[in-house]
Amino acid sequence: MLVNCVAYENGRKVADIPVEQVSEWLKRPEAFVWVAMKDPAPEELEVMAQEFDLHPLAVDDAKNGHQRPKIEEYGESLFTVLQIIELKGDDIHVAEVSIFVGPNYVLSVRRGTENGFVAVRERSEREPHLLKNGAGFVFYAIMDNVVDRYFPVVDALEVELEELEEQIFADDSPRESIRELYQLKHKLMVMRHAVEPLIEVTHKLYGGRVPGVCVGTQDYFRDVHDHLLRVSQQLDGLRDMVITALSVNLSMIAMGTGEITKRLAAYGALVAVPTLIAGVYGMNFKHMPELDAVWGYPVTLAVMVGIDAVLFRGFRKSGWL
Amino acid sequence: MLVNCVAYENGRKVADIPVEQVSEWLKRPEAFVWVAMKDPAPEELEVMAQEFDLHPLAVDDAKNGHQRPKIEEYGESLFTVLQIIELKGDDIHVAEVSIFVGPNYVLSVRRGTENGFVAVRERSEREPHLLKNGAGFVFYAIMDNVVDRYFPVVDALEVELEELEEQIFADDSPRESIRELYQLKHKLMVMRHAVEPLIEVTHKLYGGRVPGVCVGTQDYFRDVHDHLLRVSQQLDGLRDMVITALSVNLSMIAMGTGEITKRLAAYGALVAVPTLIAGVYGMNFKHMPELDAVWGYPVTLAVMVGIDAVLFRGFRKSGWL
Amino acid sequence: MLVNCVAYENGRKVADIPVEQVSEWLKRPEAFVWVAMKDPAPEELEVMAQEFDLHPLAVDDAKNGHQRPKIEEYGESLFTVLQIIELKGDDIHVAEVSIFVGPNYVLSVRRGTENGFVAVRERSEREPHLLKNGAGFVFYAIMDNVVDRYFPVVDALEVELEELEEQIFADDSPRESIRELYQLKHKLMVMRHAVEPLIEVTHKLYGGRVPGVCVGTQDYFRDVHDHLLRVSQQLDGLRDMVITALSVNLSMIAMGTGEITKRLAAYGALVAVPTLIAGVYGMNFKHMPELDAVWGYPVTLAVMVGIDAVLFRGFRKSGWL
Amino acid sequence: MLVNCVAYENGRKVADIPVEQVSEWLKRPEAFVWVAMKDPAPEELEVMAQEFDLHPLAVDDAKNGHQRPKIEEYGESLFTVLQIIELKGDDIHVAEVSIFVGPNYVLSVRRGTENGFVAVRERSEREPHLLKNGAGFVFYAIMDNVVDRYFPVVDALEVELEELEEQIFADDSPRESIRELYQLKHKLMVMRHAVEPLIEVTHKLYGGRVPGVCVGTQDYFRDVHDHLLRVSQQLDGLRDMVITALSVNLSMIAMGTGEITKRLAAYGALVAVPTLIAGVYGMNFKHMPELDAVWGYPVTLAVMVGIDAVLFRGFRKSGWL
Amino acid sequence: MLVNCVAYENGRKVADIPVEQVSEWLKRPEAFVWVAMKDPAPEELEVMAQEFDLHPLAVDDAKNGHQRPKIEEYGESLFTVLQIIELKGDDIHVAEVSIFVGPNYVLSVRRGTENGFVAVRERSEREPHLLKNGAGFVFYAIMDNVVDRYFPVVDALEVELEELEEQIFADDSPRESIRELYQLKHKLMVMRHAVEPLIEVTHKLYGGRVPGVCVGTQDYFRDVHDHLLRVSQQLDGLRDMVITALSVNLSMIAMGTGEITKRLAAYGALVAVPTLIAGVYGMNFKHMPELDAVWGYPVTLAVMVGIDAVLFRGFRKSGWL
Repeated sequence: MLVNCVAYENGRKVADIPVEQVSEWLKRPEAFVWVAMKDPAPEELEVMAQEFDLHPLAVDDAKNGHQRPKIEEYGESLFTVLQIIELKGDDIHVAEVSIFVGPNYVLSVRRGTENGFVAVRERSEREPHLLKNGAGFVFYAIMDNVVDRYFPVVDALEVELEELEEQIFADDSPRESIRELYQLKHKLMVMRHAVEPLIEVTHKLYGGRVPGVCVGTQDYFRDVHDHLLRVSQQLDGLRDMVITALSVNLSMIAMGTGEITKRLAAYGALVAVPTLIAGVYGMNFKHMPELDAVWGYPVTLAVMVGIDAVLFRGFRKSGWL
Repeated sequence: MLVNCVAYENGRKVADIPVEQVSEWLKRPEAFVWVAMKDPAPEELEVMAQEFDLHPLAVDDAKNGHQRPKIEEYGESLFTVLQIIELKGDDIHVAEVSIFVGPNYVLSVRRGTENGFVAVRERSEREPHLLKNGAGFVFYAIMDNVVDRYFPVVDALEVELEELEEQIFADDSPRESIRELYQLKHKLMVMRHAVEPLIEVTHKLYGGRVPGVCVGTQDYFRDVHDHLLRVSQQLDGLRDMVITALSVNLSMIAMGTGEITKRLAAYGALVAVPTLIAGVYGMNFKHMPELDAVWGYPVTLAVMVGIDAVLFRGFRKSGWL
Repeated sequence: MLVNCVAYENGRKVADIPVEQVSEWLKRPEAFVWVAMKDPAPEELEVMAQEFDLHPLAVDDAKNGHQRPKIEEYGESLFTVLQIIELKGDDIHVAEVSIFVGPNYVLSVRRGTENGFVAVRERSEREPHLLKNGAGFVFYAIMDNVVDRYFPVVDALEVELEELEEQIFADDSPRESIRELYQLKHKLMVMRHAVEPLIEVTHKLYGGRVPGVCVGTQDYFRDVHDHLLRVSQQLDGLRDMVITALSVNLSMIAMGTGEITKRLAAYGALVAVPTLIAGVYGMNFKHMPELDAVWGYPVTLAVMVGIDAVLFRGFRKSGWL
Repeated sequence: MLVNCVAYENGRKVADIPVEQVSEWLKRPEAFVWVAMKDPAPEELEVMAQEFDLHPLAVDDAKNGHQRPKIEEYGESLFTVLQIIELKGDDIHVAEVSIFVGPNYVLSVRRGTENGFVAVRERSEREPHLLKNGAGFVFYAIMDNVVDRYFPVVDALEVELEELEEQIFADDSPRESIRELYQLKHKLMVMRHAVEPLIEVTHKLYGGRVPGVCVGTQDYFRDVHDHLLRVSQQLDGLRDMVITALSVNLSMIAMGTGEITKRLAAYGALVAVPTLIAGVYGMNFKHMPELDAVWGYPVTLAVMVGIDAVLFRGFRKSGWL
Repeated sequence: MLVNCVAYENGRKVADIPVEQVSEWLKRPEAFVWVAMKDPAPEELEVMAQEFDLHPLAVDDAKNGHQRPKIEEYGESLFTVLQIIELKGDDIHVAEVSIFVGPNYVLSVRRGTENGFVAVRERSEREPHLLKNGAGFVFYAIMDNVVDRYFPVVDALEVELEELEEQIFADDSPRESIRELYQLKHKLMVMRHAVEPLIEVTHKLYGGRVPGVCVGTQDYFRDVHDHLLRVSQQLDGLRDMVITALSVNLSMIAMGTGEITKRLAAYGALVAVPTLIAGVYGMNFKHMPELDAVWGYPVTLAVMVGIDAVLFRGFRKSGWL
């Protein structure tokens, strides 16, 4: 689906243009064209491929989706795939945007998300002095927008871990803790797969030999790179703590078992010792003087209770109960 | 066994040729020869070695099989070994293809699999404008085909892991889960050994100094490289989660033991306490007023049941039962 | 809040100047200006941005805070973010300082800490022969001050670990040990996030192509780099030992459970065997000669005690009690 | 001990020569000398050092043995240390060969193994066209021989792991499994120490600036490098699986404990419930109608058996027995 | 404390000189001065700093001690810090030596150890042909001496691990094993901190651009580098095995618990079953024919013993006892 197709000149919007005129506008040296698509059909992409003269391998990737994040140079133009991460309830949802950038065009193809780049376009149109930088700046603005969406997700995952930590040390439902730690680890992996591949490639947009379309906006791409490093550092820290939390949880479980065994032993003793005494006085020996005494029964009961009281206090003190 | 031996000119098939004419055809500057073999005997390979003037070390490798995936330059020609991964039931099966590529020939030697490259040949013959690129393009097409076969295998392994996760958290047959996680880890290792060595070497087919036969098709080899990175990322993620799943499984087992101990303790108490009471009234004291009472027996039984009822509720509440 | 705004010439303080004159002073080739701010409002930073002609992206970072430690070049000037680590009770607190350095100015913007750089300024003013080196030396002096504050923190963490080790091997409150090890690990992670990113970037201040403002003071920046390596090595060592301590703790817990089970078994035996004997003499067989004997009861009791004594000694010897 | 001392010219053996003539022969430009020693005394090495003009540091290493595998350039000559790995029963035995290679000589000094390089010499003498390449080719042939001896050892370790896997999952003697896994890990470490250091250094024998004696035989050294990579990959895979197997073994042990506890609880119940019933009818209440009934005893026994039968079936069904 | 202050010319000792003449001697092109200090006071170091014209940052480091091992270039001179590792009983003790090397001087400042470098000096003076190489050679000789002291320490740690392995598999005092493994890990970390930083920096003393004072003795520094790699490899191997030993120990502990539980269950059964039988014959039913039989009691006892005998054999066979 075509979302927008606009021609700009000198940092200002000139006109919404029909798709078929794109190749016309690309011939004007001063203009650039910014097209946004959403979940396009293959045929729509084919039309774009002709208008913009895109490389078939890149078009294939944009058609198929489910790519690794990457930035590839095809001659003077760049083909970029970014993953958009969104929180849906407790799960994270991965959408994708493919961006074709040439000296005077930007084509963004978004898949699987409702949240587009209207805000980016509006902000850019409000700042013509920046938009004058052309396709490179638009490319930066979209990337920056995608990367900035990572932060609230990582922050949410950090909160999730903190809640899990509480739960673990409160020894509350360890079964749930394990499952949620496992799922958190999985989410971190998904995010890492979105972020890590970008770090290396964004580096090439401002350091060393920079692709033509990024020349003049290197400082901006370094900023994106820095943001990615920040997300990545948070993810690494989270991952490290999740692994530790998993092993800590195991320790808590093992300790729990030890404590149950302790209690089992203690309560067992509280029952077994009086049982032994009862057994003794249940023996059928003829000559057991205590049996004939009037005080025999009550004293025996008292002794049982007394022993248990002593044991109970002992167990309490040593922490077995 | 010889599968095919075909000469091409200008991107179009000219003729099926006998093996002995290969060296003739190689002299024609416009032509290239594409030979496919399957589990060849050493002598068959020797014939090819002479016709194509192959390096003895490369021929040795193709004879012996069981090589690491690799790409080696011998002068102007390349010697490549790829591993073909196939699912056979729950197991993964490793086959191998050795590819000799020269400026105007491609010789593929497949071992241990029925699935050849007929589809590649047919698709190539249908696209003469691509086949015109000569040996380099054919080399790409075979590699691409081999690498594309990795995806369904990794996907199957991902499904396998998901099923195992269900099983682990359902606490179903942990013994089986361990065994299957171990085997899954093993399969991942086998796949990694097929994929990892290729990543570095395919990089050299499009970046930096590119071997002669790959010049002009670098974009295609970058695409193969990108696919390999994708497989590799999936494998890394899987490996990470399998390791976590193993440790989670251990936690589940430890927790299971704790729960069994709890139940053991609880049921033990339900039996031990009435046993103690019975013991008390089994004592042979002369003066035990309750023994003479008519209501003694039923009340004692009621007390036993009553205590157990209270205990039972207590254990239920605290989650021991 | 503005803390200081001072102009220097020839290594000596000339005057406290109002903010609005900064841009005037920057035009004098011999002078340099050193400004210190603390938790400034955005507007205050905007004023500075104009006076010093700072890059908007850098100013944005200084406004927002919560950055990764980093050093970025903007033309001839450097933008640096450092994290200040302070101990607050058992916790570590992360503050931040952003430093803008140009050929003849230094602007430091501190956030979230009371401990400023007055000492740095005083020491610098006492050593005009060093201050003569200008902005580069001041930049070094601030960095050095920040990095030197890391050492007491790491040392405190090392002491914390040593105390935890004592606790673990004394088998004292393992529950507490786990929690504290987990928290220690977390603190180490926070410190690593402050230190690691700096190591690479400080390297660039003395090796290879050095930014203009650092030329002539490379030996000093190498010293900072060396200090960072020292902190980093300590952190790595600590991290390694914390992980080991966690696993050692698990072993201690598992061993504890084993020992409890042993004791449970031993004490159980001490009660169960006499109970069995009592049960035997509680049987109602008509013909049990012992029952009629006068010595029957005392001998039986003696046998019970004797068996328990033997068992007790046996358990002691084998370490079960 | 001197094993061989032979002069070659034009790829053919000329004569067995006495050690003292070595320096003479080295002056002939067409000849090269190939000497093999076995566990030489220091004095023997000193003689060689003089005849070949070897560097004292290299001679020291050859005297002392127990070196890391390495390749060092001393001017135009190479000094190489390789470790020879042999299976002795279940253990692996590490021997060593030091190789001095110059433009027209090869001196191999073997220590601690009976298996020399006679086969290498014989095969080389049978192929004069290869031997013509001189010292470089002999150097390759010895290296290749040493590296090829690694494969059967790694294969044996793989078989050992497979047997251990069987044992682990059969839950057979976990004590033995742990010990053997530990020892297997140790053997892998020894092999890795033989292989890893060579990988990097052999790379330098065919890529980049190649030492003079290896020029012209680079393809052969690349082949050795490839073999080392293969061994290394197998070792890495093994190591990974051994670590997993160790953790799997722990899980199996933990699960075993859980199952024992289950059975303990189940059998305990089978005994405790009838004991309770017996206890009840052991009570001395006057008014217990069942006691007077003729059917009292048999019915009670039947009830005991009946309850146990029900319990037994229940435990079977739930997998506790 | 000044240990030695000697001037050399042409590889031979000329004179013990007073500290104040050092700067004089440094002016003679043929001479070089070799000074050794031990735990010097700051003032002593200040004197040296003036005589040798040392860089203040380096002097600071030598004053403070507790540095990371490092090699820093200050103009034409080198400043080196090495850690000396010594065994003191079961502990390892870390001492330090700072070495200032210039074109014609060596100043070594040792801290915290009694074992100096007299042997180095004596051996050097006995070999004037080597000492002629000047300061570079002396620098090498000291480094070599320090590094050679690492080997006996690592060997001692290897012996310690072997003893611990015995202990673990003998299941002897696991509590002690854990503690000692932990401490061994700690010692390995201390040694690694002494060795690892040196590996990279010694590499720069013989490869690439070599500092002036090391020119001509590169082969010697490569030898030191090789020794460091050897120590490092041993340390890595040890570390790997210690981690494995820790996890193996955990498995042994878990297995021990399982075995205790088995024995607990088995002995429990041996007591519980006869207790049940005794309970049965303790019941007060009127009609229990066995009770009246003369053989009732002995047969019952025999049955109890018989059942226990059967159980005992069964438990033995299945390994529970």
